[in-house]
Amino acid sequence: MPIQFDVDPSVARLAEATAEFVREVVIPAERECGGSVHDAPQALRETLQKGAREAGVFAPHVPKRWGGHGLDLRGQAVVFEAAGYSVLGPLALNCASPDEGNMHLLEKVATEEQQARYLRPLAAGEYRSCFAMTEPAPGAGSDPRALRTTAVRVPGGWRIDGHKWFITGASGADFAIVMARTDGSPGSSGGATMFLVDAANPGMRIVRNIDTLDESLFAGHSELVFEECVVGEDQVLGQVHRGFENAQVRLGPARLTHCMRWLGAATRARDVALERAGTREAFGSLLGDLGMVQQMLADSEIDIEASRALIWRTAWELDNGTASAAQFSSVSKVFVAEAVGRIVDRAVQICGALGISAEDAPLARLIREVRPFRIYDGPSETHRFAIARRAVKPYRQPRQAGTAGS
Amino acid sequence: MPIQFDVDPSVARLAEATAEFVREVVIPAERECGGSVHDAPQALRETLQKGAREAGVFAPHVPKRWGGHGLDLRGQAVVFEAAGYSVLGPLALNCASPDEGNMHLLEKVATEEQQARYLRPLAAGEYRSCFAMTEPAPGAGSDPRALRTTAVRVPGGWRIDGHKWFITGASGADFAIVMARTDGSPGSSGGATMFLVDAANPGMRIVRNIDTLDESLFAGHSELVFEECVVGEDQVLGQVHRGFENAQVRLGPARLTHCMRWLGAATRARDVALERAGTREAFGSLLGDLGMVQQMLADSEIDIEASRALIWRTAWELDNGTASAAQFSSVSKVFVAEAVGRIVDRAVQICGALGISAEDAPLARLIREVRPFRIYDGPSETHRFAIARRAVKPYRQPRQAGTAGS
Amino acid sequence: MPIQFDVDPSVARLAEATAEFVREVVIPAERECGGSVHDAPQALRETLQKGAREAGVFAPHVPKRWGGHGLDLRGQAVVFEAAGYSVLGPLALNCASPDEGNMHLLEKVATEEQQARYLRPLAAGEYRSCFAMTEPAPGAGSDPRALRTTAVRVPGGWRIDGHKWFITGASGADFAIVMARTDGSPGSSGGATMFLVDAANPGMRIVRNIDTLDESLFAGHSELVFEECVVGEDQVLGQVHRGFENAQVRLGPARLTHCMRWLGAATRARDVALERAGTREAFGSLLGDLGMVQQMLADSEIDIEASRALIWRTAWELDNGTASAAQFSSVSKVFVAEAVGRIVDRAVQICGALGISAEDAPLARLIREVRPFRIYDGPSETHRFAIARRAVKPYRQPRQAGTAGS
Amino acid sequence: MPIQFDVDPSVARLAEATAEFVREVVIPAERECGGSVHDAPQALRETLQKGAREAGVFAPHVPKRWGGHGLDLRGQAVVFEAAGYSVLGPLALNCASPDEGNMHLLEKVATEEQQARYLRPLAAGEYRSCFAMTEPAPGAGSDPRALRTTAVRVPGGWRIDGHKWFITGASGADFAIVMARTDGSPGSSGGATMFLVDAANPGMRIVRNIDTLDESLFAGHSELVFEECVVGEDQVLGQVHRGFENAQVRLGPARLTHCMRWLGAATRARDVALERAGTREAFGSLLGDLGMVQQMLADSEIDIEASRALIWRTAWELDNGTASAAQFSSVSKVFVAEAVGRIVDRAVQICGALGISAEDAPLARLIREVRPFRIYDGPSETHRFAIARRAVKPYRQPRQAGTAGS
Repeated sequence: MPIQFDVDPSVARLAEATAEFVREVVIPAERECGGSVHDAPQALRETLQKGAREAGVFAPHVPKRWGGHGLDLRGQAVVFEAAGYSVLGPLALNCASPDEGNMHLLEKVATEEQQARYLRPLAAGEYRSCFAMTEPAPGAGSDPRALRTTAVRVPGGWRIDGHKWFITGASGADFAIVMARTDGSPGSSGGATMFLVDAANPGMRIVRNIDTLDESLFAGHSELVFEECVVGEDQVLGQVHRGFENAQVRLGPARLTHCMRWLGAATRARDVALERAGTREAFGSLLGDLGMVQQMLADSEIDIEASRALIWRTAWELDNGTASAAQFSSVSKVFVAEAVGRIVDRAVQICGALGISAEDAPLARLIREVRPFRIYDGPSETHRFAIARRAVKPYRQPRQAGTAGS
Repeated sequence: MPIQFDVDPSVARLAEATAEFVREVVIPAERECGGSVHDAPQALRETLQKGAREAGVFAPHVPKRWGGHGLDLRGQAVVFEAAGYSVLGPLALNCASPDEGNMHLLEKVATEEQQARYLRPLAAGEYRSCFAMTEPAPGAGSDPRALRTTAVRVPGGWRIDGHKWFITGASGADFAIVMARTDGSPGSSGGATMFLVDAANPGMRIVRNIDTLDESLFAGHSELVFEECVVGEDQVLGQVHRGFENAQVRLGPARLTHCMRWLGAATRARDVALERAGTREAFGSLLGDLGMVQQMLADSEIDIEASRALIWRTAWELDNGTASAAQFSSVSKVFVAEAVGRIVDRAVQICGALGISAEDAPLARLIREVRPFRIYDGPSETHRFAIARRAVKPYRQPRQAGTAGS
Repeated sequence: MPIQFDVDPSVARLAEATAEFVREVVIPAERECGGSVHDAPQALRETLQKGAREAGVFAPHVPKRWGGHGLDLRGQAVVFEAAGYSVLGPLALNCASPDEGNMHLLEKVATEEQQARYLRPLAAGEYRSCFAMTEPAPGAGSDPRALRTTAVRVPGGWRIDGHKWFITGASGADFAIVMARTDGSPGSSGGATMFLVDAANPGMRIVRNIDTLDESLFAGHSELVFEECVVGEDQVLGQVHRGFENAQVRLGPARLTHCMRWLGAATRARDVALERAGTREAFGSLLGDLGMVQQMLADSEIDIEASRALIWRTAWELDNGTASAAQFSSVSKVFVAEAVGRIVDRAVQICGALGISAEDAPLARLIREVRPFRIYDGPSETHRFAIARRAVKPYRQPRQAGTAGS
Repeated sequence: MPIQFDVDPSVARLAEATAEFVREVVIPAERECGGSVHDAPQALRETLQKGAREAGVFAPHVPKRWGGHGLDLRGQAVVFEAAGYSVLGPLALNCASPDEGNMHLLEKVATEEQQARYLRPLAAGEYRSCFAMTEPAPGAGSDPRALRTTAVRVPGGWRIDGHKWFITGASGADFAIVMARTDGSPGSSGGATMFLVDAANPGMRIVRNIDTLDESLFAGHSELVFEECVVGEDQVLGQVHRGFENAQVRLGPARLTHCMRWLGAATRARDVALERAGTREAFGSLLGDLGMVQQMLADSEIDIEASRALIWRTAWELDNGTASAAQFSSVSKVFVAEAVGRIVDRAVQICGALGISAEDAPLARLIREVRPFRIYDGPSETHRFAIARRAVKPYRQPRQAGTAGS
């Protein structure tokens, strides 16, 4: 079959239903949390997820045996974008970060018992989870090899000690997936292992909920301390020492689903700008007929279509497990994160004072929400580094002994 | 005398004293308002202004006869930048917007009685003021000719009716300078007039304090309604029908002092990034030794020096009342507003999670504060329009009758 | 079928054969014309086309009944990119501008007699052609409505008078397709008509071959004068007065095939940069391991993939004749023209002096060739204008009588 | 004296005379070499220099005792910009690269005998010279430490062996200043020494004149070979082993004078664009009244003023020998080289086909001339590296033993 951009009819129907649900139910609910999802009440989450179930749009990405629609990544690309039109949309559909990525990871690497215990209720929206990897300096940040949290064997299991921060959704989560070093030392890749830690474990403690620029993820970002946190052998997720590899299992698609949701947010900003441009007059002309405004509007259309085309391409590469999938994943992450930032920024500029007011339009919130996307899930620089390394590789000459340099 | 970039020794001393005051007194006080100046308590303002007086750095721009240092704009360029290093600095020195611009306007166009009644206490920090010009759509926004608030003659004075928003500092201000149409109709330039309206006037009412992206100006931005707001003839500021011209008296320098203060904020962001780059390691290297980080650091140095050079040049043009002053004012506004945005954005990117946390570094706040600067005091597009018009003017051919177009 | 990026195996084989032919035959021939196609000898064209026929890669876009491979636009996207790897590649495959677009136009709107007389030899490489639309100021440039060349009815046919310039391939062409106004006046869209004019017609005269920045199109760009150029009724191409509409028949796909070919050129520049980055040392490091170089390399990878994804999407829209095809055509033109410019520019920067030398690498030539692409076939600004108009349209409020503005 | 942007009256007069001379004499002469200075005849150089002498504008930078106007760098900033308005202007005034930089170097480090022998006729326009530093890979490029050309002591002097390329003005030059390694090995800074080599020396040979993208420097760029090139002890320029340091004596100001001349070229491109914008109509409007064109025009005004302000600042720093001079020199080089590129690029875009034609406007040539400026005299990346290093230095923490990294 040749190159093809038709959307599968069943996916298109689900996307339309999602768009309608977001428009009719989710956007009106934004007022209830002032647009900030960080501090949204648990009741709002429950109401929205109930609404999504009734609208038949809940859990689009979840395999059918766990109660979802079982979409592949191309299907998710279409539906998640529709959900992302409101910052509350992904929460409503139970496809928000970090739960969505954790479901994918558990589906791929958890044992059957672990899936029954953790994945089933997570997919149903009964549980929430977090993914505890990032550490304060000099620990694991954009460079995961700097990992400092350790897990050592103790009789019957492992003891985890360390310090994590910017752990999204940790506050109120039912369990955490924790990355800890089980081999090597900070700076070497060595070996890491993932552990499932229940919220009730007294060795895991939230020390702070961080006040961040963005506020669009349920329960916000927390700082955690692990002190003599003991877990049983059956709490190891995936194989021992294979944590870095398994993190890639999660991060590849998780990066892309981030792109999908944020592209939806960008289309919201674009629509606000278009409505303004189509109705507001300035300098004796409709705003949308002024050349500099047209330039901004056109550039946002271009950014949206280029982003969507890259996301779809990457979804196809990942769905087919191609050798280029990792490269496309990085390419999309950088391009979409930066494009989304530009699109929202232009919308703010076009809307003027209205773009600055947090009450009169969603833009003043969106500009805060999208900025960290260039940092989360690997800063643009880290991905550019990886992209360039892969591109240069076939041309790389072995360094000759005796030449300049160290 | 040839081209010359030496700073006058007395100005240099005042700038150093300001920098020290900001470092020792103002920055530690930032915690008291969580970095948000919008909701800072009046007591904090009084404490900081008292400190500035004791440090001998209060009111650098105020003429000596009103108790200030009497700096020209070149002197202000150096000192305001030092003050802007903290968002609270200009408040402490009583050179924050909108009071600073209003002082300048009153100095230039107010009668002696009006100066004694309004300028004296404003310069001393006893009063606060606001400048009520911007209106919600379809009123005066980036296009002042759309002005809809009216003032009509009544026996003994004028009656003002209209609707204003994004009026900075209105909440708690002792008086407002109000722009109202006294001739013509919206869309024509016609004639506008400025009025001094006391806070006690029952015809002026705050209907809302707007929740905005930025929070760096004392008392925030408010929405005001004028209903049968009657003022006496002696409350006319400047000449009747000359309001648009007088607004330029205020805006030319006010735009530039904005640039000065924000450049100071940008140097703060730059320093945070440099400290991070000089101390944090990633990928087996100091952050500041990684090429992509170096590129960001270098670009910020370039942006800072280009901004400073343009501000100084524009200050010199304004100090000398040259024919190019208006053009330079627009050139600086566009360049500096955009450069400051880039500098803060790069600092956030370099600092990663730390740049996103509102508690751990000032960047997550600064990125919110600087964004509106590209909109306030004339959006970049309006200034670019004016710059291009002036540049094309000498080359413009009269349109021939009968050619294409309307 | 869902979203799908697999290339049809027969297309993939043709693309591989094309890539091999370009590598083995075309690139070695570049020396013969010093990389400049403008002044390449006719003999070189014949040799290359003969080679392409022997390699089985000639005329990929031409319908099978005229002797080509009959690829749709998605197929062309893949093969033209491979051909564009050398500036001589499209000439060799007989899919260079303007002949390629003219073939498409003749296929769509010519009568059977006209196809036999003009399309058959054009498709076979026996004829060359040009498309005479652009006029010097104040005639038709980026605004086609300014068309000044006229055609008036004379007994048995039409008389064409006017002035054209930047007519690619005119020198030595066997016939021209000429756009002339047959109704209305310059500035109104009115009606235009296309005419087939034989090179032998004494009323059509080349007055100058223009020395342009780019030199990558066979026979370059010429200035033409039409004086009492009389043609018969059977030389009308398409319907009378439908010239503007028919121009779109040509330009929609022609713009996209330009993008395909130039993307191929960009991949050449990228490969030169990668080879340099993988083998050259500076500052004690491989060039490709320096962060700032990595940033450029990564940005070019991103630009290439985003360009390719947009081209493929647009090809699909055009192949399916969707309502969005025109919008996608403009989106791709702007994005790809600018991306290609950036990619070549970065390659030059990475290669340093080597990128500046016209003898030691193809970059110094390529940077000249790709610049005009942002102007030809509609400057970026014209396309952005069209993109914004379409985007605003659904939101546009009818202007109220009596509001501001003219 | 405070900050000050007035131009000294005598400098202003010289700049005006230069502008007039360029307008009346130099620009008309551009046709004689088709805008390409590379291949301009020697007679044209002589005629133009004679004209400059008669107009009293010859050698503005040359000390009075050698027959020039003795301007400091601030004065040169104003006059060189006026000269650069035509690519032939600096040649006419004898302030073109590389002679201008070589005069400065000889003035600073040559012995009195060397000055009499080389500087006097060079300043008078009787001699031409070149500066032979750059080498083909893997020799000295953007990293001077990679220097491979060697000079070893022989009885009575030195023997130079090596390979240089991109040596501007070498063809027909009367002497070369040659940089050769006299200590250490490629990759270490070691010690280099400069030598004065007469054109007649049989050990120095031009092997190729390189066909480059740019053609704006008299006699173009050549490739040279040194084979057993023996020079006397009195041909050592400056101290032995101090070549790298002395190169900085030349490069600091030489970089800035490049900026001055290129800024003049940018103002030419800007003027062409303004004239077009002020006279050409499109879409029923004057080009200069279209918003997207206004944006380009405004951005070029901003780029020009920011460039000029940075150049003047840097000239002042260099004139006063401040500690910041080197940093400002790099800041200006990067900013101005990139700004000039943008300005010319925008002018091309505004002028459309006219911007592409090498005959109808100077833009198609200028876009070729300015591109290499981002590479010559240190590519932007090398300067950004240096700028960032200096900025980070005060914050740099010593790396701790045992931390991550090699």
